[in-house]
Amino acid sequence: MTDPNPLIEKFRVFVREHVLGREAWLDSSPEHPLAPIVELERQGISNWWVPAMYGGLGLSVRESLDIVELLAYGDAGLANGIAGRSLAAAAIRIYGDDAQKRNYLAPSATDPTFFGALSATEEAAGSELLRTATVARKLGNEYLLDGLKFVSTGAALAKFTVVLAKVAEGDLRAFIVPMDAKGVKVVKRWRTEGLRSYVYSQVALERCRIPASLMLRGQGVRLVEAATSAMRPQIAATAVGIGMRVRDVCLEYGAKKMLGGRPLAQNDVFAAKLGQMEAELTTMRAVAREAAVEFDEIVRGSDPEEHFRRHGGTKSAVVAKLICGQLGWKIASAGTEMFGGLGYMQEHIIWKLLRDVRHVAILEAGEDVIRALLHARHCVPIFE
Amino acid sequence: MTDPNPLIEKFRVFVREHVLGREAWLDSSPEHPLAPIVELERQGISNWWVPAMYGGLGLSVRESLDIVELLAYGDAGLANGIAGRSLAAAAIRIYGDDAQKRNYLAPSATDPTFFGALSATEEAAGSELLRTATVARKLGNEYLLDGLKFVSTGAALAKFTVVLAKVAEGDLRAFIVPMDAKGVKVVKRWRTEGLRSYVYSQVALERCRIPASLMLRGQGVRLVEAATSAMRPQIAATAVGIGMRVRDVCLEYGAKKMLGGRPLAQNDVFAAKLGQMEAELTTMRAVAREAAVEFDEIVRGSDPEEHFRRHGGTKSAVVAKLICGQLGWKIASAGTEMFGGLGYMQEHIIWKLLRDVRHVAILEAGEDVIRALLHARHCVPIFE
Amino acid sequence: MTDPNPLIEKFRVFVREHVLGREAWLDSSPEHPLAPIVELERQGISNWWVPAMYGGLGLSVRESLDIVELLAYGDAGLANGIAGRSLAAAAIRIYGDDAQKRNYLAPSATDPTFFGALSATEEAAGSELLRTATVARKLGNEYLLDGLKFVSTGAALAKFTVVLAKVAEGDLRAFIVPMDAKGVKVVKRWRTEGLRSYVYSQVALERCRIPASLMLRGQGVRLVEAATSAMRPQIAATAVGIGMRVRDVCLEYGAKKMLGGRPLAQNDVFAAKLGQMEAELTTMRAVAREAAVEFDEIVRGSDPEEHFRRHGGTKSAVVAKLICGQLGWKIASAGTEMFGGLGYMQEHIIWKLLRDVRHVAILEAGEDVIRALLHARHCVPIFE
Amino acid sequence: MTDPNPLIEKFRVFVREHVLGREAWLDSSPEHPLAPIVELERQGISNWWVPAMYGGLGLSVRESLDIVELLAYGDAGLANGIAGRSLAAAAIRIYGDDAQKRNYLAPSATDPTFFGALSATEEAAGSELLRTATVARKLGNEYLLDGLKFVSTGAALAKFTVVLAKVAEGDLRAFIVPMDAKGVKVVKRWRTEGLRSYVYSQVALERCRIPASLMLRGQGVRLVEAATSAMRPQIAATAVGIGMRVRDVCLEYGAKKMLGGRPLAQNDVFAAKLGQMEAELTTMRAVAREAAVEFDEIVRGSDPEEHFRRHGGTKSAVVAKLICGQLGWKIASAGTEMFGGLGYMQEHIIWKLLRDVRHVAILEAGEDVIRALLHARHCVPIFE
Repeated sequence: MTDPNPLIEKFRVFVREHVLGREAWLDSSPEHPLAPIVELERQGISNWWVPAMYGGLGLSVRESLDIVELLAYGDAGLANGIAGRSLAAAAIRIYGDDAQKRNYLAPSATDPTFFGALSATEEAAGSELLRTATVARKLGNEYLLDGLKFVSTGAALAKFTVVLAKVAEGDLRAFIVPMDAKGVKVVKRWRTEGLRSYVYSQVALERCRIPASLMLRGQGVRLVEAATSAMRPQIAATAVGIGMRVRDVCLEYGAKKMLGGRPLAQNDVFAAKLGQMEAELTTMRAVAREAAVEFDEIVRGSDPEEHFRRHGGTKSAVVAKLICGQLGWKIASAGTEMFGGLGYMQEHIIWKLLRDVRHVAILEAGEDVIRALLHARHCVPIFE
Repeated sequence: MTDPNPLIEKFRVFVREHVLGREAWLDSSPEHPLAPIVELERQGISNWWVPAMYGGLGLSVRESLDIVELLAYGDAGLANGIAGRSLAAAAIRIYGDDAQKRNYLAPSATDPTFFGALSATEEAAGSELLRTATVARKLGNEYLLDGLKFVSTGAALAKFTVVLAKVAEGDLRAFIVPMDAKGVKVVKRWRTEGLRSYVYSQVALERCRIPASLMLRGQGVRLVEAATSAMRPQIAATAVGIGMRVRDVCLEYGAKKMLGGRPLAQNDVFAAKLGQMEAELTTMRAVAREAAVEFDEIVRGSDPEEHFRRHGGTKSAVVAKLICGQLGWKIASAGTEMFGGLGYMQEHIIWKLLRDVRHVAILEAGEDVIRALLHARHCVPIFE
Repeated sequence: MTDPNPLIEKFRVFVREHVLGREAWLDSSPEHPLAPIVELERQGISNWWVPAMYGGLGLSVRESLDIVELLAYGDAGLANGIAGRSLAAAAIRIYGDDAQKRNYLAPSATDPTFFGALSATEEAAGSELLRTATVARKLGNEYLLDGLKFVSTGAALAKFTVVLAKVAEGDLRAFIVPMDAKGVKVVKRWRTEGLRSYVYSQVALERCRIPASLMLRGQGVRLVEAATSAMRPQIAATAVGIGMRVRDVCLEYGAKKMLGGRPLAQNDVFAAKLGQMEAELTTMRAVAREAAVEFDEIVRGSDPEEHFRRHGGTKSAVVAKLICGQLGWKIASAGTEMFGGLGYMQEHIIWKLLRDVRHVAILEAGEDVIRALLHARHCVPIFE
Repeated sequence: MTDPNPLIEKFRVFVREHVLGREAWLDSSPEHPLAPIVELERQGISNWWVPAMYGGLGLSVRESLDIVELLAYGDAGLANGIAGRSLAAAAIRIYGDDAQKRNYLAPSATDPTFFGALSATEEAAGSELLRTATVARKLGNEYLLDGLKFVSTGAALAKFTVVLAKVAEGDLRAFIVPMDAKGVKVVKRWRTEGLRSYVYSQVALERCRIPASLMLRGQGVRLVEAATSAMRPQIAATAVGIGMRVRDVCLEYGAKKMLGGRPLAQNDVFAAKLGQMEAELTTMRAVAREAAVEFDEIVRGSDPEEHFRRHGGTKSAVVAKLICGQLGWKIASAGTEMFGGLGYMQEHIIWKLLRDVRHVAILEAGEDVIRALLHARHCVPIFE
């Protein structure tokens, strides 16, 4: 089966040729640069999200989902890391001025290794961005940044990172910080349970000076919400890809494992489990797509910045993340039981899939945070 | 809040003025004709699904969902009964010849009380349509039908019903049977747990003669699958409407019930439950819409009959029904606990909502049937 | 199969002869006196819990569970109502003085219609007993009670009720109030969703005067906790009995319903569901028994009053209620799906079982209240 | 808090001093002999289950649960491995003759390093013991064994293993096979996801000759069922210990993590989660204890061999394993979400606990096998 969209088909071929079969290695926290990423860069498709007006491939978030599903089917760390490159780009696209876009968005079109990270989360603040402790003090034409960012996907490999910092009490802003700026330091590479093929780092800012022109427009929390409204559907799509991999590993097992003298695939309980998985995968895909389409429409609209200023992040994006995190975990949990003792051996892939899918529910806003947010902002009665 | 679509807004106003507040009466298995249905017919909007080429309003299944949600928010029996009118119409639209369409589809455009039922299910066969025992014997230019159809929504009120019958071993066909044909008898009105405002009947066919010209094209099972591919998204939307009603009843309670000296709405656990519900409602809506859009595209396509012949019913429709049945039950179950002892009193609405929503999971193919079907037909690995 | 314990066997025979087959009538909120209860009283086994030292049968709570399971298998309203007679008795046994025991506990041994109710819950206070609004003012040798008690099981049939009232801010006490005392009024019989065979009433106290000698010892909240520590295992056992009935109705259906040409009982998915139910029933019974045994040991101990003063209600009793409420609902929910459309008809028993079992999770402290309590009082790390 | 039972208290002290704090090392598949096990042996408490009549400590299975909970709280691999020593002992105790008991059970009392393993499972047969392919052919006074046993806990460290083998079609028997017998080979140490501190090996039997006197009495399947009836409650207790560890890690986090300016422990949702966990832990413990008590009573009874011949393994033991596997996974799953991003780091203990607890549901009969068994053997209606 080939995909009718030739670009998506390229990714399909890439996954088959450069990812499938290398999962154990990808799961071993390998050193970067990673051969498959170098290959994606070589093919010029690593930054698929750069808008056409800057010379990029111009794929929408909706189209990105198809890519992310395929990549995550192969390896979720890879999917998350590569797709994560679009996070800073989304922020700059909406909140950047012309010079910022020219210098920090456009280069990604011609240089497939050029991208940014996002550095928002801090240890004490956790999901409460308003408690951000990193400060940015204005000194003439510069800002002086100080703080410690707990987790920053891909910062160790990025050319710059977008940093959330407090310029005054209750006033958070975002700054473009080149990774080679003085005072920026990648402190530590996290050893995460899942997504081990990518690089989650702590980033320290110690008396880091940057020109004032690198401050992005808009309130910082809204900027993060806008960027995550683009990213969350893709995180959700990671869960879809992992879930499809679980299904396929089960199907393969069902075809050859014998139970009661017949292939397991003919057992009613096996069929019921796979049928339920299939329904859940279709559901996950539907919510992820809806969230992607909503973001794409906002960005294509007349004033995305104003939209996010008034409404905050999209409801559909948080729903997609929450539901895909829950259903993805349900599917992978079922998977860890499907193979009996075999699935308990480290050489089996199922636990990698389980560990990988957990990030959807945990990283960048856990389930409790999302539920509270949904109640606070999006629970509105129909007839009032 | 008003709906931008004036026709949907009509239904919104209808629900507010003719349904809300009458739930206890609607839940009492009232005699037909039902005042709210008469009102819908008076407004000329009861048969919204008649194609424009026959002079109807021509709403797609996708648009129907918005109506069904609103109706089900008010009363699910009403929603299901009215939307159920489109089931026979969908069958005739795809499998009828010109005369059949002229005589049994077109009249619904001008006569708001004109519609058909579907009579497929039998007691012993259950979900296994291939075990249908009703027979149709050809006698010259006529067919002679004999059998007992277990549940037929709205047959007691319909002008005709589409009957599934066996013309030879392994050969099922569908027939248009006028309700006033000799030998057709509505045997019994079921007292169902939910959906009590509508009429679920047993229909007996005893030596019932109809002209051979009333046989529809195509294999009977495919015809039923095609028709239910239109109906299942609407059944799923019923669950969405009921679920939204549960949410709104909870929100109202949370605003006034005091716990620990504060409104319950400020309690974290209450917020978490409502946030989860909200996410599930958004999810249910997404899968129902996806299923509706798929059906609409098939029907707008060049040869829907051929499509269903080759592919059977849509995967998205069974997924929508399964997932909305599961999440709808989860939401309503949570609801029955939300109000403490108050919710255990018959005067409270919550148990009506619980009873109503259960039909989504039970009627017309239960969860086990759907899971087995999904495994058998729709579980396909990505890389083969 | 007969029970080795002749008293339990009596109840088994009673259920078979006087309850099974009359469920529809019992579910119709029939008027009292109820024939089966009259029969139990005639046999002299309606008050099985009266201690032997007062001339009663002296069954422990642990032994009561076997009775309650059987009764609930037949009809949960009956089980709950009859077992609920022991609630006031448990309070008097622990907190009563000799005269109170002689006058309000001992008579239950000789008069099988003599028993008390408990009137604690109020509408606004809900589960927060400390917010009780009913007041008891001391006037010489009397107390003057005023208040409205929201739900009082069996008060309409009882000879007296134990009332929780505030004698001073923060000081709650319990009083024995004869039902024929002036100012006591059964205001309303609730129409509940489940347990329809019993009588849940609102009790109003309007300038009700009782002698001061009818005040029980101890703080009121502790007294209620002690009494519910006896009752909750029995409520949990109700869920066990209902769950066993669900299982048996399923087993019967599985034996005769055909699927794919074989009895449903041979289908793997059916077997898996029944196997899971069986495990859950065994679990429910285990937690209920543990809770009963703990209470029995406390009461047989040297100073039960002091025990409850120091420790409050037993942890095992709240756990039993919570877990049996959850698993009972899970089992009955599965049941409502098992029978397809058949189970959606009012003539089927499954929805009665579902409605009945819900009270375990809802009445007398909902799940949220219990979880909060477990965290606040009983979550203690092992190594400190 | 100290345990009133001095032997249990010894284990508590052992866990605190020799296990807590060494989890990362224990999770690294360390080489044996393992220091903590050597310490247990040094204290003479590693074989607590040897009957007093053979000079052992003579603890019942019920008492063993308290030990296993504590050990599993520290490290489940340790708990499982040490408790697993009792599996072969239980088989010999019930099915051994005097010489077998003298030579293979009694030595465990005086030599704390002396114990046996059980080698039943094969790859193709999986949970279907009747499909065992290992054969034992009688040659004069000897048996010649050939086969490959997939997983055998602790065989690499044991003095002997009890092997299930086919002596004729449909006739399975158990044999005591000294690990130093010719032809016995530990082929491979499995790298399991959890329980990494213990040794799961594949054992090959290649033309292995043993004296016929080492064949145990009884049918092989019954023998395995009897032995697992002793072991399964202990496996269930492992889940209890792990679950208590999850709870305590959560409690510790809740006390120090700040949310909204207050400790997380004061958040209602946190409290609700911990309250639910606590209820589940109490439930798990209740079912494990019930299963232990049932086994102990059978063994203390007049003829345990006959009991198992007639009834097979105990229902309570399979229920304990199933329910503790399910609730243990639920608790640990909740745990993996509780700590946000922190819990996703490999240095956090929560994933070790999740991986460890999974074995309860997977190893030695998965959930589907148990459910099918419960339906087939233990689902009996009350009134027949």
